[in-house]
Amino acid sequence: MNYIDLVTEIKKKESFLCIGLDTSLEKIPSFLHRKVDPVFEFNKQIIESTQDLAIAYKINLAFYESQGIAGWQSLIKTVDHVRNYAEIFLIADAKRGDIGNTSKEYASAFFDKLNFDAITVAPYMGHDSVSPFLSFPDKWTILLALTSNEGAKDFQFNYIEKDQEFMFEQVIRKSAAWGSPKNMMYVVGATKAENILNIRKIIPEHFLLVPGVGAQGGSLKEVAKFGMNKNCGLIVNSSRDIIYAGQDGNFGNAAREKASDLQQEMKLLLKEYMP
Amino acid sequence: MNYIDLVTEIKKKESFLCIGLDTSLEKIPSFLHRKVDPVFEFNKQIIESTQDLAIAYKINLAFYESQGIAGWQSLIKTVDHVRNYAEIFLIADAKRGDIGNTSKEYASAFFDKLNFDAITVAPYMGHDSVSPFLSFPDKWTILLALTSNEGAKDFQFNYIEKDQEFMFEQVIRKSAAWGSPKNMMYVVGATKAENILNIRKIIPEHFLLVPGVGAQGGSLKEVAKFGMNKNCGLIVNSSRDIIYAGQDGNFGNAAREKASDLQQEMKLLLKEYMP
Repeated sequence: MNYIDLVTEIKKKESFLCIGLDTSLEKIPSFLHRKVDPVFEFNKQIIESTQDLAIAYKINLAFYESQGIAGWQSLIKTVDHVRNYAEIFLIADAKRGDIGNTSKEYASAFFDKLNFDAITVAPYMGHDSVSPFLSFPDKWTILLALTSNEGAKDFQFNYIEKDQEFMFEQVIRKSAAWGSPKNMMYVVGATKAENILNIRKIIPEHFLLVPGVGAQGGSLKEVAKFGMNKNCGLIVNSSRDIIYAGQDGNFGNAAREKASDLQQEMKLLLKEYMP
Repeated sequence: MNYIDLVTEIKKKESFLCIGLDTSLEKIPSFLHRKVDPVFEFNKQIIESTQDLAIAYKINLAFYESQGIAGWQSLIKTVDHVRNYAEIFLIADAKRGDIGNTSKEYASAFFDKLNFDAITVAPYMGHDSVSPFLSFPDKWTILLALTSNEGAKDFQFNYIEKDQEFMFEQVIRKSAAWGSPKNMMYVVGATKAENILNIRKIIPEHFLLVPGVGAQGGSLKEVAKFGMNKNCGLIVNSSRDIIYAGQDGNFGNAAREKASDLQQEMKLLLKEYMP
């Protein structure tokens, strides 16, 4: 999916919501365990209940890899099911990154074989670990910049005196030159909304993928206030708060209600900050 | 596998060689394509031809994930085959790392389900992204510190004035407190052998996993000179130079010859630097 189509969908759905399918067997309603593929059944119902409210889904690979081949099968079926909705932006939250020839294999896995629109990538290994992901047309690399977890403070806030910037700012500034706002986004945690202002000085145009609204505690209002640009420029993810909202046969509706609350809030924020 | 057993194997085999199974369909001898699982057939023959010369195998996940379910099957079969040799140290070169509850899923995937001894982990997300891997007894976390690729210079050599150290040194110093030499190792590229000396000042005891000898151009002698400690403390990896040494029916023997050359060199270096 390209930049224009993504912005069009955001405007049409009045939403910049991404739903994270961090689906684990222990957390889904127990009656699904009778199904051949409980994880896929769960994902399918979540997708069908929310696909008109969300512009994107994010699949965290860890929850599928931990189930071995069965997990890989659930993953493939979920991807195929999302692909029934051509307008959905599909993110592999895989946080990959390796030397050039190896990153190329990951890019092939997630873009060619699995048909994801985007993949999250870790920056530590630098340019040649990221660039193989950037060579696929209409595919996106979402680089980790400022994450929403406690450990973000360990290295991401290292101050680089020479360049007068924090590590996460340097990651953004340097890597922005490797691609463009048409094929790169950045993970920026909502728990540090005040930093989004500074990030917007470096990259006014890029989309930011914002995890940590909801279970991880960030504020949607603050993110929109500091982060929104003329094309929205935000994809805000919520996972557990939405997908585990209900535990009975109506879990799809419960998820829809939670997603709808966020979408309604997003609609107002789009009116306020993106006139 | 624990620390003592690893050191015992190194002494017994007079080797600190790790062979990287970066197996891709395009690079293996073409006659193997007739087999049901060419990647596994290749790995099996490489393992059988070299298991008395190597103390470890490293499986880079990218090459398996890029083949989807078939790749995952080749991976499982390869792991099972290595497990015929109880004394082999088996590394998942996966470069994972995510928020706490997600890293826990990856740890479960690679340690519980797949029975690897060790996994490589990216440090960018800090403590809580690494710690879930450290809670498994006799399992190892191998943190990326100084990688062997060109892009290593982009962020790993950021100088942190406040702490008077490079980013890669800070990653090592801080993270060393999260675990111990009994459950943590570090990836340190052989192409920057002069930096190993400084790394040894921070972590005299830890094992270093050194990629980049061979195809990536590092010198084994320099690595041993600067990096070896009283328990060896080195696992040196070579992938393509060994596994793709031959292209005909004798590819196993060709790999064995290359592995043997390295093992012979290692034997001398162990005598010289670890008396």
